[in-house]
Amino acid sequence: MEKVKQIEVKKGMKASELVDEMGKSGVMGAGRIAKAANILNEMIKDKECRVFFGFAAAMVPGGMKNILIDMLENNVVDVLVVTGAALTHDLVEALGFSHFQGSANVDDAKLNKEKIDRIYDSFMPNRVYEKLEDFFDKNFDKFPKDTNIKEFLWAIGSLIKEKSILKTCYEKKIPIFCPAIADSGIGLMIWGKLAAGKKIKVDAFDDMKEIMRIAWDCKKAGIFYVGGGVPKNFIQQSMQFAPKGADYGIQVTTDAPQFGGSSGAELREGISWGKMSEKGKFVDVYCDATIALPLIWAAVKDKL
Amino acid sequence: MEKVKQIEVKKGMKASELVDEMGKSGVMGAGRIAKAANILNEMIKDKECRVFFGFAAAMVPGGMKNILIDMLENNVVDVLVVTGAALTHDLVEALGFSHFQGSANVDDAKLNKEKIDRIYDSFMPNRVYEKLEDFFDKNFDKFPKDTNIKEFLWAIGSLIKEKSILKTCYEKKIPIFCPAIADSGIGLMIWGKLAAGKKIKVDAFDDMKEIMRIAWDCKKAGIFYVGGGVPKNFIQQSMQFAPKGADYGIQVTTDAPQFGGSSGAELREGISWGKMSEKGKFVDVYCDATIALPLIWAAVKDKL
Amino acid sequence: MEKVKQIEVKKGMKASELVDEMGKSGVMGAGRIAKAANILNEMIKDKECRVFFGFAAAMVPGGMKNILIDMLENNVVDVLVVTGAALTHDLVEALGFSHFQGSANVDDAKLNKEKIDRIYDSFMPNRVYEKLEDFFDKNFDKFPKDTNIKEFLWAIGSLIKEKSILKTCYEKKIPIFCPAIADSGIGLMIWGKLAAGKKIKVDAFDDMKEIMRIAWDCKKAGIFYVGGGVPKNFIQQSMQFAPKGADYGIQVTTDAPQFGGSSGAELREGISWGKMSEKGKFVDVYCDATIALPLIWAAVKDKL
Amino acid sequence: MEKVKQIEVKKGMKASELVDEMGKSGVMGAGRIAKAANILNEMIKDKECRVFFGFAAAMVPGGMKNILIDMLENNVVDVLVVTGAALTHDLVEALGFSHFQGSANVDDAKLNKEKIDRIYDSFMPNRVYEKLEDFFDKNFDKFPKDTNIKEFLWAIGSLIKEKSILKTCYEKKIPIFCPAIADSGIGLMIWGKLAAGKKIKVDAFDDMKEIMRIAWDCKKAGIFYVGGGVPKNFIQQSMQFAPKGADYGIQVTTDAPQFGGSSGAELREGISWGKMSEKGKFVDVYCDATIALPLIWAAVKDKL
Repeated sequence: MEKVKQIEVKKGMKASELVDEMGKSGVMGAGRIAKAANILNEMIKDKECRVFFGFAAAMVPGGMKNILIDMLENNVVDVLVVTGAALTHDLVEALGFSHFQGSANVDDAKLNKEKIDRIYDSFMPNRVYEKLEDFFDKNFDKFPKDTNIKEFLWAIGSLIKEKSILKTCYEKKIPIFCPAIADSGIGLMIWGKLAAGKKIKVDAFDDMKEIMRIAWDCKKAGIFYVGGGVPKNFIQQSMQFAPKGADYGIQVTTDAPQFGGSSGAELREGISWGKMSEKGKFVDVYCDATIALPLIWAAVKDKL
Repeated sequence: MEKVKQIEVKKGMKASELVDEMGKSGVMGAGRIAKAANILNEMIKDKECRVFFGFAAAMVPGGMKNILIDMLENNVVDVLVVTGAALTHDLVEALGFSHFQGSANVDDAKLNKEKIDRIYDSFMPNRVYEKLEDFFDKNFDKFPKDTNIKEFLWAIGSLIKEKSILKTCYEKKIPIFCPAIADSGIGLMIWGKLAAGKKIKVDAFDDMKEIMRIAWDCKKAGIFYVGGGVPKNFIQQSMQFAPKGADYGIQVTTDAPQFGGSSGAELREGISWGKMSEKGKFVDVYCDATIALPLIWAAVKDKL
Repeated sequence: MEKVKQIEVKKGMKASELVDEMGKSGVMGAGRIAKAANILNEMIKDKECRVFFGFAAAMVPGGMKNILIDMLENNVVDVLVVTGAALTHDLVEALGFSHFQGSANVDDAKLNKEKIDRIYDSFMPNRVYEKLEDFFDKNFDKFPKDTNIKEFLWAIGSLIKEKSILKTCYEKKIPIFCPAIADSGIGLMIWGKLAAGKKIKVDAFDDMKEIMRIAWDCKKAGIFYVGGGVPKNFIQQSMQFAPKGADYGIQVTTDAPQFGGSSGAELREGISWGKMSEKGKFVDVYCDATIALPLIWAAVKDKL
Repeated sequence: MEKVKQIEVKKGMKASELVDEMGKSGVMGAGRIAKAANILNEMIKDKECRVFFGFAAAMVPGGMKNILIDMLENNVVDVLVVTGAALTHDLVEALGFSHFQGSANVDDAKLNKEKIDRIYDSFMPNRVYEKLEDFFDKNFDKFPKDTNIKEFLWAIGSLIKEKSILKTCYEKKIPIFCPAIADSGIGLMIWGKLAAGKKIKVDAFDDMKEIMRIAWDCKKAGIFYVGGGVPKNFIQQSMQFAPKGADYGIQVTTDAPQFGGSSGAELREGISWGKMSEKGKFVDVYCDATIALPLIWAAVKDKL
């Protein structure tokens, strides 16, 4: 058994050194942050491994966008699965809008009168929707009219000029899956077009062929979940078709196992299903992702 | 100000009386359970109100299926939004399988060898998938081949003989929306067909027209969320198009607001977006749904 | 393996019947509520068992006082361990004050100006402290001046006329332990006396002899924790001296194991320490106690 | 309103730079970590401010001991309030023992047979208790026999040669309060002596005079809570007697406000009681302390 080494904080220490110290302690949250950094590092260095990244939650308003883009640009991610809201926030920022530092301890009726939409303690001016409409008005004819969700999202990415998740995925040909795309601001825009009599068909099941084939064909699979929901679950179900289930796994969650839902389920539960390899290396990090993700990525990037 | 009345438990008391006592206390979780029962009661009695019910999480393995069916049969629910997993579990039980009382404190590798899939402390034999395959083999030709998700789910419901959520929605013509249907065992079955060269097109956006129209047309809207995820978010976005946002609202969640995600967001946050009416009656119940939902429904059913 | 039976809610059903249904489901929170009721029932019926009850948290403002008193009067509890705050709230109500139904979504500075103390969504007028002072002014000379905490608390109980936890424990000679008594409104009152030059000595360690002897002498031990903190931990450490550790155990907590603290630790962790019997029957209920406790007690009381 | 700046992670960046980036984002957990670092920095630089530090939870087995000692040695902490368990763990390590990196996914009955005590995923050999007994056997006669808790703890500190929280507080004359000292391994040792007929009287209330006087006399007060429980509550009640309540405040907690307990209560709730200044600067950090505390301290230490 390894001793728990008491963590030493030194003046001017690097974030990666702090994570190393956390690893020497090796227990509780600190130990899990360090373990996540080590596993991510291994995943990246293992040339046989394809990394499936699930990204839920309000990560763009939470300041995590450029970390994801950095990971995409550094070839850390082979498959991205996201919520429609994350992509909408990404598109909104690409169109020139920002989220703002607000507060949760406010009068929401007053915000409503000021046309400010609240996402916990971040604020978004409601008129971003007008800008989104302009974008879809201007570009609707350029979208493929009979397609699947991934191609539809790449088409959006191809039309964006600013740094963004969507543009990066398009340019680097990173498959981006978003099964619940209808459930988002982007979905609302398409609904607006359908309601106006325009035609577009985007198939709900077609993308499964591609994600399953990538899972099936890879020699090893790594999974990294920031939050739960559909992105986690959709990757999990594809892992049943990977050769041995996932060989590496990290999840960062503020949910908990003891309520029985998919988002909080421990990764080891996946072993029973064949979604995780019995011999895989994996860790559950119980932490706000806006704290854990920068720390893990800072530790890993320093060693790339 | 109302006094906090100390709760009195009496021998032989009814569940509805216990909830009434919780309401006399009026604070913390107990107060919220009672408030939820009162709001649900009002929603049901308000003839102008259409109720949108979001149902995420592992509720069928958790024993909640018949409560939902009971609510559907009692005309409590006008629109159902669910996860694909919930519908898969429902279909699995309709095909004659059960979930089993297990434990989370187990060796998942051993379960894997015994072909048992674990959902926290409930177990499911993996061979349910064979039965699912049989069902889709036998019935694939009966499905509409160019459709939307709701029609596809109703088609499944039309083919089921046993008591189930899917069958009840089909028979009572309750619209059932499931934006992320690909992310489920049912999704896997369709993928199997696509991979085998069969053809089916299910549109990802088309259902939005119907849920939006229901929201738009209703005089008042009530929302009831059991868990978060896509079901909550998809209903929330439709509420932006209800005349005044939702007039009544209940959410039962084990998530928390302080991490910024949609699943844990307080309902009052929706006021800023126009998803909730400033004058609406709503309550956030922070509780395991398998405890809260039976209690709330027992209290309400007793007064129907 | 037992099947998960879907819970049936019937019009007019008793709370105890609802808990029975939860037991037939047997999984997740519902299953744990039923298991807790069964274990409590067994603890009570086992004549060899002494029950140690730990009661933390804001349970009196939360409406749980009379349930605890009911349990004390029904001889369910042999040893009570509490926080000082719980006893202060109890004394405040015995002196004629009430807590009030408030809200957490308020301006605390405004409450401060109105001299209202907030405990989440319950309110307490700050002038209760004047009444507490009157009580201690009037009675200080009646307190033993060189004593231990239990005797000091029984002395308070002997001076109270109204129904209360303190009075019930005194009258029924139920030992009541409160290691951190200084950390409470009652502590503040004694500090006021000490600051004014009065003398009283209350020993911090002396009570340990009694709780340890009860643990040592009992044939079997049962534990029931409502919340964590000192009450749980103080009972846990006494269990190391019970013949086999605790034979029965229930904890109701909103804390979680994954952060490593004592309050959220699973009861099974106690097996490693010898605090729980390897063969004991125990359950962790992850639920707001103001919901779980009334439900469990209603189920058990109906069968007494 | 400030924009949410997307966090940039740079190769080789310092931990303090990462926290600065989190501050530019300014929202959710990341924003709160940065705000905590800023407030701690201000507390330290404000020469009029006395800092009350509350330290609950399994922080020594969790690897946080040297960070606390570092803060004590750097004169960051004026008053320390702790749990008895934290001090016992500190004493155990000072006596030459270590905690070990274990796992929570184990057979606790097997650990019991191997005489290993589990604290979530850290392990402690049970024979530390023998060593503790030796220490108290050898030193019992040196303890003051009629004293208060702080003097008793300083006496222990005066007898320790190894680096430890207790020794540092003794040497630097930092008052250390531990109202529930009986609830700990140290308590068990004193109980052993009492049971063997030895005499020692340690007063439960006497320390209140000192902490209240420090609160009363200070020009400004700062509070820093790592975990909740008695340490938080005991400091909170002293703040009612500080000139304006606390002027600065940080709490790091994995508890949540919505269950009504003291440990999870938002700091702003203290404004209603007069425990926090309406104009104070404070922040609630919802995060595992073994992640948040190293990060906050690394950021602040770099700027000392």
